[in-house]
Amino acid sequence: MDPIRIDDPRDSRVAAYLDIRERDLAGRQGRFVAEGKVVLDLLLSSGRFGAESILVLENRLDGLEDILHKAPADLPVYIVTSAVMDAIAGFHMHRGILAIGRKETPQAVGPLLDALSGQALVVVLVGIANHDNMGSIFRNAAAFGADAVLMDATCCDPLYRKAIRVSVGAALKIPFASFTDTSGFTATLAERGFEQFALSPRGNTDIRDARPAQRLALYLGTEGEGLPESLLARLQTVRITMSKGFDSLNVAAASAIALHHFSHR
Amino acid sequence: MDPIRIDDPRDSRVAAYLDIRERDLAGRQGRFVAEGKVVLDLLLSSGRFGAESILVLENRLDGLEDILHKAPADLPVYIVTSAVMDAIAGFHMHRGILAIGRKETPQAVGPLLDALSGQALVVVLVGIANHDNMGSIFRNAAAFGADAVLMDATCCDPLYRKAIRVSVGAALKIPFASFTDTSGFTATLAERGFEQFALSPRGNTDIRDARPAQRLALYLGTEGEGLPESLLARLQTVRITMSKGFDSLNVAAASAIALHHFSHR
Repeated sequence: MDPIRIDDPRDSRVAAYLDIRERDLAGRQGRFVAEGKVVLDLLLSSGRFGAESILVLENRLDGLEDILHKAPADLPVYIVTSAVMDAIAGFHMHRGILAIGRKETPQAVGPLLDALSGQALVVVLVGIANHDNMGSIFRNAAAFGADAVLMDATCCDPLYRKAIRVSVGAALKIPFASFTDTSGFTATLAERGFEQFALSPRGNTDIRDARPAQRLALYLGTEGEGLPESLLARLQTVRITMSKGFDSLNVAAASAIALHHFSHR
Repeated sequence: MDPIRIDDPRDSRVAAYLDIRERDLAGRQGRFVAEGKVVLDLLLSSGRFGAESILVLENRLDGLEDILHKAPADLPVYIVTSAVMDAIAGFHMHRGILAIGRKETPQAVGPLLDALSGQALVVVLVGIANHDNMGSIFRNAAAFGADAVLMDATCCDPLYRKAIRVSVGAALKIPFASFTDTSGFTATLAERGFEQFALSPRGNTDIRDARPAQRLALYLGTEGEGLPESLLARLQTVRITMSKGFDSLNVAAASAIALHHFSHR
């Protein structure tokens, strides 16, 4: 691997990195941006996604040798000065480590579930539209060994730059898939022997009393609305008991508690 | 309460709201900024901090009647158009509800602990310098009925605007105090009969096996460094068991799991 020096921010070889923030909003046609050392490491080592190139500040290259050895020999590594990096990205990039990854063809729910073993923990997200929460939930899912994340069509993209960063790369590690028909999806999980728990402030059972199952699905909804009533009516519901005077918990914090409880020790 | 219309962003009556972001960094001499409906409600109803004034978008006033009734009759409520609000704040304030609160004289640790009952849960923070994490920890502390938050001198200010917002007002509700001498502080808690647990990835006991005590102190450290070894050596240490391939948990998520475990059911 021979790093390639880039001096012109408009060099076509780094076009995918131009105006990172604005392009986040506009989408980037099958690509995503990985930021930082830990995330780059996961991108190169998990093997789930291909990488197109790496863009590094010249003074960060030395600390990256071990990680860059995991990259295919022909993966271009561009090095730039801080001024060129900022001119490319469109704002001050103090981390100085970026990579472009290629999204895969979205996986279908069925094959993803078929690939799971007899002992499986899956996270089901409905209406999680905030990238911070999405990233945090992926991070917690990875920390507690969840095998997959399944999302309804109203969830935001876990491969959005900020979601990947907040997930500390977990979004590049845990398989995920989207579904459109929620009630059909619930039936699919039931057929495959999943016990299905919905987390809700009005859940019937305190989560401390909910028995982990060999195959378990945990449903999480948005902070404001929560999971739709139609779904709650069809699933076992669990609650996290909170203080009477302040029953407010962020969905990411709730996911940490619930996943810790349901994780296989 | 008669709302006072402000048309000039430079009106001295709203000077405390000028350039909110920049002033956050510079400090604001004994004042803090409360944002949003829920936080305003807590400011006015918890009674822990005095309010100096309220600044509201004219079209948000109708939805605030119930909350504004909790304010002292002589508290000024300023109403402005969206353009004036943005000109005052220095950026687009889409929430449209702000208030200035007065910090109290910092409470000392001793009197704060003396005021606690026989059953008490306190959170001890060492080196939490990120306002997001600080706010999230306060939110979790409130959700699980913690009675106080005690911080070493390297922690950031829980009354920073963003910390209050992320805490959903919990920073205005839970008593807190700072200490400088950590080992003296540990002795103070021991004298008062607190069992003291330090959360650490290398903790001796899985937190699921740690028995909640009547009086309990939970120590949390920074994400990177964790709690100092000198402290870990003197306390019972507990860990949150994570996946071998991904043992990464945000300190706020860890606080949620630990506080949920130690909260009195």
